[in-house]
Amino acid sequence: MQFTSEQRLDDGVLEREFTLGEIPGTLWTPGAAPAPLILMAPNNGLPKRESRLVARARHYASFGYAVAAIDAPGCGDRPRSAADEQARADLRRAMQAGEPVDEIFESFIGPLVEKAVPEWRTTLDALLSLPEIGGPVGYSGWTAVGVRLAVVEPRIAAAGFFAGGYVPRAQREEAPQVTIPLLFLMQWDDEGNPRQRALDLFDAFGTKEKTLHANLGGHVGTPWFEVEDGSRFFDRHLK
Amino acid sequence: MQFTSEQRLDDGVLEREFTLGEIPGTLWTPGAAPAPLILMAPNNGLPKRESRLVARARHYASFGYAVAAIDAPGCGDRPRSAADEQARADLRRAMQAGEPVDEIFESFIGPLVEKAVPEWRTTLDALLSLPEIGGPVGYSGWTAVGVRLAVVEPRIAAAGFFAGGYVPRAQREEAPQVTIPLLFLMQWDDEGNPRQRALDLFDAFGTKEKTLHANLGGHVGTPWFEVEDGSRFFDRHLK
Repeated sequence: MQFTSEQRLDDGVLEREFTLGEIPGTLWTPGAAPAPLILMAPNNGLPKRESRLVARARHYASFGYAVAAIDAPGCGDRPRSAADEQARADLRRAMQAGEPVDEIFESFIGPLVEKAVPEWRTTLDALLSLPEIGGPVGYSGWTAVGVRLAVVEPRIAAAGFFAGGYVPRAQREEAPQVTIPLLFLMQWDDEGNPRQRALDLFDAFGTKEKTLHANLGGHVGTPWFEVEDGSRFFDRHLK
Repeated sequence: MQFTSEQRLDDGVLEREFTLGEIPGTLWTPGAAPAPLILMAPNNGLPKRESRLVARARHYASFGYAVAAIDAPGCGDRPRSAADEQARADLRRAMQAGEPVDEIFESFIGPLVEKAVPEWRTTLDALLSLPEIGGPVGYSGWTAVGVRLAVVEPRIAAAGFFAGGYVPRAQREEAPQVTIPLLFLMQWDDEGNPRQRALDLFDAFGTKEKTLHANLGGHVGTPWFEVEDGSRFFDRHLK
């Protein structure tokens, strides 16, 4: 893990860019160490520099968490293939048109999840070797990657998932194997995530400790207080 | 409004029993005055001295709210008719057996809501005349009474509703008229409240600011952190 740049934010949080082999990442650490860690995965291959993700990461860091985000293969600042670009454009167009996107999801997002999860585990190894990070480890963000990580990675102690109307079939099928505490956040009128599918996914999780939060509005309308609710969820399970 | 007894709790909260005409009530007030007010209605005519309600009231009072609870006509410490006792027993038996209870709801809970709402408004008048209570006013608890109060009582600024699978038809029909901020709390496997009906009621509310919280488990299994979430909801709207 090589740090390539750093800046100190107003509230004492240190924000550093890093690379780990081909993986570009950002790490936010609070003043006090060692800190519990939150892995924050941008949804469906969005870039880790997406402004709402950065705001959320900085908020959690200001409340005492180390937070890490990485770009998935072919996403964010990583080299993109023409085929990926085409699939991404198809997905965006179909979602905006309100068309079913299952097929694109299976052919594009499904393999992306398969490729992203091992990279998150490699990143987790590297992060936990840093003296400023102590664990335990939480996960926040992209539902499909989180489901898979929660099933295969015993170091994840609690997870917050967002949206979840469209999730690859493999992750819908393994949802009953998720047994860690969950906070499942959805938007009631999410234009890209059918409501009933999100509710069905929440229902399917195997954990005994799961909480659903839903707010009125579309995909990007989540109210800011949900970030605060999320940090209290992690406080209960990671601190 | 006549105070009939009082005790000072460990955290400085004053807990007083009162009567207002035929209405018996309890008022919890914090050390600092004037305080914003939360009307806390025991669900479906349960007694105001029910232990979970009292714990919730004391918690809110310790966070700076005046909290008031009253017994509905024929409920709690009030004179009970044989017919009410029979209806209550029928309702309990049907719910425990998992049978549909719409008919009992319409004939017993429906009229109870009609009788309870004017008493809450009379109580609100009396409470707001006390120097230790300043407003604004929130509502917490029994969904059907809360829906009606939110529609007819302009002094209610925000409301937290619990359960809501079974609600009299009149309140289901006036749900779209509710336009104040709402926190709607349900148990995912509530044995007495069908899940889909609760979700449909949440969907029907007319307000632009509504949040759904659902937790795994049965009717009395709500985790304690929902009380804290509830007090933060009121902090956003009443303080």
